[in-house]
Amino acid sequence: MPVLLEPDRAPTLDRLLAETDTQGLQWRIEPAPDGRLPSVAGIGTLAHAGAAEISFLANPRYQSQLAATGAGAVIVTPEAAQALAQAGQPPSFARVVCSQPYFLYARIAQWFERASRPRRPAGVHPLAVVAPDAVVEDDASIGPHCVVESGAHIGRGTVLGPGCVVGQGCRVGPDGLLHARVTLYHGVRIGARAIVHSGAVLGADGFGFAPDPAGQGAWAKIPQLGGVVVGDDVEIGANTTIDRGALDDTRIGNGVKLDNQIMIAHNVQVGDHTAIAACVGVAGSTSIGARCTIGGAAMLSGHLVLADDVHVSGGTAITSSISRPGRYTGVYPYAEHGQWQRNAAVIQQLSQLRQRLRTLEKG
Amino acid sequence: MPVLLEPDRAPTLDRLLAETDTQGLQWRIEPAPDGRLPSVAGIGTLAHAGAAEISFLANPRYQSQLAATGAGAVIVTPEAAQALAQAGQPPSFARVVCSQPYFLYARIAQWFERASRPRRPAGVHPLAVVAPDAVVEDDASIGPHCVVESGAHIGRGTVLGPGCVVGQGCRVGPDGLLHARVTLYHGVRIGARAIVHSGAVLGADGFGFAPDPAGQGAWAKIPQLGGVVVGDDVEIGANTTIDRGALDDTRIGNGVKLDNQIMIAHNVQVGDHTAIAACVGVAGSTSIGARCTIGGAAMLSGHLVLADDVHVSGGTAITSSISRPGRYTGVYPYAEHGQWQRNAAVIQQLSQLRQRLRTLEKG
Amino acid sequence: MPVLLEPDRAPTLDRLLAETDTQGLQWRIEPAPDGRLPSVAGIGTLAHAGAAEISFLANPRYQSQLAATGAGAVIVTPEAAQALAQAGQPPSFARVVCSQPYFLYARIAQWFERASRPRRPAGVHPLAVVAPDAVVEDDASIGPHCVVESGAHIGRGTVLGPGCVVGQGCRVGPDGLLHARVTLYHGVRIGARAIVHSGAVLGADGFGFAPDPAGQGAWAKIPQLGGVVVGDDVEIGANTTIDRGALDDTRIGNGVKLDNQIMIAHNVQVGDHTAIAACVGVAGSTSIGARCTIGGAAMLSGHLVLADDVHVSGGTAITSSISRPGRYTGVYPYAEHGQWQRNAAVIQQLSQLRQRLRTLEKG
Repeated sequence: MPVLLEPDRAPTLDRLLAETDTQGLQWRIEPAPDGRLPSVAGIGTLAHAGAAEISFLANPRYQSQLAATGAGAVIVTPEAAQALAQAGQPPSFARVVCSQPYFLYARIAQWFERASRPRRPAGVHPLAVVAPDAVVEDDASIGPHCVVESGAHIGRGTVLGPGCVVGQGCRVGPDGLLHARVTLYHGVRIGARAIVHSGAVLGADGFGFAPDPAGQGAWAKIPQLGGVVVGDDVEIGANTTIDRGALDDTRIGNGVKLDNQIMIAHNVQVGDHTAIAACVGVAGSTSIGARCTIGGAAMLSGHLVLADDVHVSGGTAITSSISRPGRYTGVYPYAEHGQWQRNAAVIQQLSQLRQRLRTLEKG
Repeated sequence: MPVLLEPDRAPTLDRLLAETDTQGLQWRIEPAPDGRLPSVAGIGTLAHAGAAEISFLANPRYQSQLAATGAGAVIVTPEAAQALAQAGQPPSFARVVCSQPYFLYARIAQWFERASRPRRPAGVHPLAVVAPDAVVEDDASIGPHCVVESGAHIGRGTVLGPGCVVGQGCRVGPDGLLHARVTLYHGVRIGARAIVHSGAVLGADGFGFAPDPAGQGAWAKIPQLGGVVVGDDVEIGANTTIDRGALDDTRIGNGVKLDNQIMIAHNVQVGDHTAIAACVGVAGSTSIGARCTIGGAAMLSGHLVLADDVHVSGGTAITSSISRPGRYTGVYPYAEHGQWQRNAAVIQQLSQLRQRLRTLEKG
Repeated sequence: MPVLLEPDRAPTLDRLLAETDTQGLQWRIEPAPDGRLPSVAGIGTLAHAGAAEISFLANPRYQSQLAATGAGAVIVTPEAAQALAQAGQPPSFARVVCSQPYFLYARIAQWFERASRPRRPAGVHPLAVVAPDAVVEDDASIGPHCVVESGAHIGRGTVLGPGCVVGQGCRVGPDGLLHARVTLYHGVRIGARAIVHSGAVLGADGFGFAPDPAGQGAWAKIPQLGGVVVGDDVEIGANTTIDRGALDDTRIGNGVKLDNQIMIAHNVQVGDHTAIAACVGVAGSTSIGARCTIGGAAMLSGHLVLADDVHVSGGTAITSSISRPGRYTGVYPYAEHGQWQRNAAVIQQLSQLRQRLRTLEKG
């Protein structure tokens, strides 16, 4: 993995754990046979970690990888630690014993992220353009080439990377992070602790047209007067788009996680803690419940209602409402091309085939 | 819905109608029982509108919502107005009677859009970079951090939001609106009254490669020397991409409406007044007729010809040309996951199944 | 096609060929009957080229188009040249005879691209922001409104179009071309001669979340500490996104060509010379072999391994690993809507249908 910290900034294992947020987790350190604790400059997989890195074993299936790892320290379950202790030879690496190795890894990763990510200085960059009546709270950071328009409000500790555009009357934060080149049209509201990735566009016009009464096939634009309201603790992926509502607001609940290149159309509602993978399209006025998961490249038609706890498989087209929790799928199974051709040809005759079968059955 | 106008800027109902473009529409006002006309600060749905908002009833199915609406005024058909008059109790809201309530709503929405949308001052922002030989016509507005390159021409009344890039020799306008962060490569031409949303990219290289005769699997780039030509009255959604042609131009007809995250490949032709929903991909050199509609997440293969008035359902892959108007669909029907698994497994055997059926029939 | 060169800059046919890189190709010129060689201002198709343009005939199927072309010169095979010579009347255009007309066209197109594309002056634009400890090598060009952050390295001859953001510690080049508004998060490395199109985002966080042990359906973010490593001679399309790895790097091999609006998730590996068409999504940790082609709007699930020389048809969902080279397809065949409805209804009963067939067979 990339070098996260220069050696002279790498903490010893005990200091790293002491500085990590381990709330809700119990852990203990077992030193390597030489009794010394390694300095930890980064995190790696068991296969690739080096002596200055910590790794983790979350899945017992990979226990055998422990023998060959070059990691300086490994997070293991009590069971794995016991198995190591009972093996003939003590491991060369230090162990951090914790019943939830994956979560401890995630927390340590957060420590490294804070230590190694670029910091943005508080204040407004001289090449940013901030309207006189916009409010930028203390400890917020407005990067170069940003635009913050009239009446916008940037909450405490919120960071705008280079080239962000925050439209008239928007509210963002506190403690938000807009990476470079995020665009918010006017009147978009984003709650606390949001992370929005580069190229995301919130508040563009919904796709609203009606046949022009003047005819000739022309379309009349229906102005999109609603807004976009995003809850707290939401993450929005790169180049994802969320359109403003036609009259009411498009709404993204608390704790929602949206991956890259997702399209959320006007008037859509996404319930709390729902997670949507990349390349999904949600058509207008559809409402998705809480705690749903939508697999990558799935597509939801407009004006549907999905209940809470619905799980849609990747690549599936949902064309009607779903009222019961559960997992739903509709993917054409792929095959070697010639085989696909032979079988796909029959699909156009399925209805006749069923009829022929009925005839035989009556026969 | 979001507050559109402060109360002191809200017009009375009669003034609102007088200032709305109602060309081609007939209407009359019926005041509320107290004879007063409300001030109208915004538009809302029947379910959510308040006393300072106007709503509309376009679909007779929702007539029952009239009883409970809190709207200060409602646009209704003559039939609905008559039904209200015949009911025991006069409604508490003012009525605007019009045989086409949806279109009157659309026109009133346009009034509110003009009144409430951010205005861009005419002229070139000091942090924009405009080439000495570029032409910016009167009343055009070039926002902060824009770049307008050599020989480009920005027509009268055209607005470039913050961070737009208009390449060498482009033409845009008159009366165009490029929202923040639109990119036009060199030589892109866009007609009158276009609306282009943030993150759209017009004129990037088409995907043209040929196996390098030097071999080893390498690809040789075929330079893309054509341009992109967009007609009048076109709208292009956020993060949509339209590639330049290989030799001739990629062409988007008049009145075409493109939603977000659409991909139009090199040499594609899109006929007048065709509307394409979000997440659609159109592969190279395909020609789409006039007045077509393409549903969301549909996909069109390359080198196809679609006739005028073809309607493709969402999620459908069009892999051959279509010469007859009509609606075309190809979506795998979704199901509960276990049911899908049972049925999908049979798809790989359809050809054999048909053979077995034939054998029985001969039997 | 668009005018590429003003007439006074158009070279004569012999000078054009002399200045074109024709390494590995053999060619000769046959003048038109009047013995003069045309000046060549651009390239066109046989159908549209004019007297100041060169065209080419690569496919013998189109031989008949030669009779009607208005091109001033045409690249033809020796066989086509002979056929022309044997026809009664000599053609009015000059011929360039070459056994590989398409490649000679591609090389001539490269000459025109160099001659007609906007040039970027070397140096740093005064409205760009370059960190004091970033390195910009000789002959590199940093456009207006760019940001180059601390420790970044821009190689010799590399061009950054307007509004690019190059994060902390990135490396790009030499001889790279980032079109306007490309975003590289911190620690992204791109090799020599890359072309990256507008709106592309490299290095955004992978979509890594785990159920929060605190429960309630909330998600805990797994920091994404890996990077993105891109090889030499890679092209990346407009609005394509490549996420950084969770621990190790996301890797794009040498000579890979990625079209627009592709999504490459964290930890993905793409082998050398693989080409991926637009709108494809590749889910996390999937590994694609060398020399593969992936058709537009295909979708690859996560944690798969695709062998070298695998070809996936457009619109196909690949949901399991593929160990054998070949072509793989899984597309629902489209039909007129009513026909689709009749047949799709049967898909939900396929498993029963097979059972009924078995019963009959046992009959």
